[in-house]
Amino acid sequence: MTTAGLPMQVPAEGLPSRVRIHEVGARDGLQNEQTVVPTEVKAEFVHRLADAGLPLVEATSFVHPKWVPQLADAEELFPRLGDLDPHRLPVLVPNDRGLDRALALGARRIAVFGSATESFAKANLNRTVDEALAMFAPVVRRAKDAGVHVRGYLSMCFGDPWEGPVPLAQTVRVCRALLDLGCDELSLGDTIGVATPGHVQHLLAALNEAGVPTSKLGVHFHDTYGQALANTYAALQHGVTTVDASAGGLGGCPYAKSATGNLATEDLVWMLHGLGIETGVDLDRLIATSVWMADVLGRPSPSRTLRALSHKE
Amino acid sequence: MTTAGLPMQVPAEGLPSRVRIHEVGARDGLQNEQTVVPTEVKAEFVHRLADAGLPLVEATSFVHPKWVPQLADAEELFPRLGDLDPHRLPVLVPNDRGLDRALALGARRIAVFGSATESFAKANLNRTVDEALAMFAPVVRRAKDAGVHVRGYLSMCFGDPWEGPVPLAQTVRVCRALLDLGCDELSLGDTIGVATPGHVQHLLAALNEAGVPTSKLGVHFHDTYGQALANTYAALQHGVTTVDASAGGLGGCPYAKSATGNLATEDLVWMLHGLGIETGVDLDRLIATSVWMADVLGRPSPSRTLRALSHKE
Repeated sequence: MTTAGLPMQVPAEGLPSRVRIHEVGARDGLQNEQTVVPTEVKAEFVHRLADAGLPLVEATSFVHPKWVPQLADAEELFPRLGDLDPHRLPVLVPNDRGLDRALALGARRIAVFGSATESFAKANLNRTVDEALAMFAPVVRRAKDAGVHVRGYLSMCFGDPWEGPVPLAQTVRVCRALLDLGCDELSLGDTIGVATPGHVQHLLAALNEAGVPTSKLGVHFHDTYGQALANTYAALQHGVTTVDASAGGLGGCPYAKSATGNLATEDLVWMLHGLGIETGVDLDRLIATSVWMADVLGRPSPSRTLRALSHKE
Repeated sequence: MTTAGLPMQVPAEGLPSRVRIHEVGARDGLQNEQTVVPTEVKAEFVHRLADAGLPLVEATSFVHPKWVPQLADAEELFPRLGDLDPHRLPVLVPNDRGLDRALALGARRIAVFGSATESFAKANLNRTVDEALAMFAPVVRRAKDAGVHVRGYLSMCFGDPWEGPVPLAQTVRVCRALLDLGCDELSLGDTIGVATPGHVQHLLAALNEAGVPTSKLGVHFHDTYGQALANTYAALQHGVTTVDASAGGLGGCPYAKSATGNLATEDLVWMLHGLGIETGVDLDRLIATSVWMADVLGRPSPSRTLRALSHKE
């Protein structure tokens, strides 16, 4: 079996020439795995992802350890990444206290995590959408004052497990609010994976109409219904150049109830390279890293590209 | 957890309003499963797929039983489907002898199975590409004389496990030859799943330039690298309205070496319905059928939509 020369590089019209992959496996991925990974293994994971050419490797989260025990070692982990440029290592920061911790360790890129729906804001943050925005306001302001880049995650942009379909205007309103707080970029999350390509294009168009340029928008698709890559393709056609993905599809076991797996970085890279789009990623090194992490976690990766290429004879 | 009202129906511009799904699970799917399914179970499977609204349910193959033991019961199976319109039940026919058997049982829709590459023609048919075409010529002619609809499958249209990338001109030549034999439609197979959306669009455009109208073209993607649905979306954008898929993703275990799973019909239907495209398929009934077949085969389905919806609480 040969995959030499594959995928064939055949550009499609109107797509960007380069895409920046925002790798979330070490944070969003491990946060949603049952196994708690030792700090030194996390540090090796982040290093290997960076060495594979991923430009941004979200490293950890400065939430209260009680809420996310998988990432309770942020203070121990971040210093172990001191040889990497902190501008490549975004960290999640929920509130003022989290920002203090991140800044003290030299973080230069942070993210806040909002919700497009009241139900998820209540479940995840125990606040209304507007109360959550009010909580983020000083975080974003202080981060910007410190010269730190701020990403705003927005979950449930397309559908919500309690509310069903989310109206475009509702998502647009919260996006605008996050940008008005000072966020440098947004990541539009399809947290339960229910989006389809037309929905993606309509939301992006609605955001443009509301004055949000596509250059400030990243997309974050989940593969719960197998739609993540088709949705990504639709976003690329709209001009999006920042795409979130998780090495090996970490985060949300595909064999569990209510599976909510992230788009696997390997499947994304295969498509982008097939489209002749530069990513800077060495796919073989990325796969070796994800195969190693799957061994650590003791379960197979759901990434189809990983499985196909790691099973090569 | 609610999926009521999901996926949201949000049409994208320039897509067809209706797609005809050519269901291959009972033939291409079961042919590539290790378990040999009893004839009466196959008959129930085809009936349930038809009842779920799939317009075309490829039922079996009249190849020599020695080559495909999984489908050696074609003579016993086809009469059990006598209550269904035979125009909805395509059958694979490799040669004159197979056509005799199919016609004797009242088949009204057949398919021949060619290759775009010499390596696969040799491996699968022990013939050159042109020798295979010569073998199909009388089959197609006799079928057409009998008023039977003929589909031409073409495998390895994008890449080949021995030869790597397949030049567009090579695939176009064999497509033209199959149509010149009298085939009514073609199914462009990405047998090893290596295509990406730009490649799909370029092949379709090259076929149009060679005088092949899109209306005669179906697409048959495999999800080996997770690209099947993105490729399908690209094909829809080009105007393709016939898409092959396999209920539950049958055919090629995703956990095995060189996995070559078909696109799961459930994942396809989710996307099409999300795009507001009519299929006639009742997704709940389809999923119930695939869950039942996964039990028969004793292994989980790789379809993500199936897993998400059958795990609903």
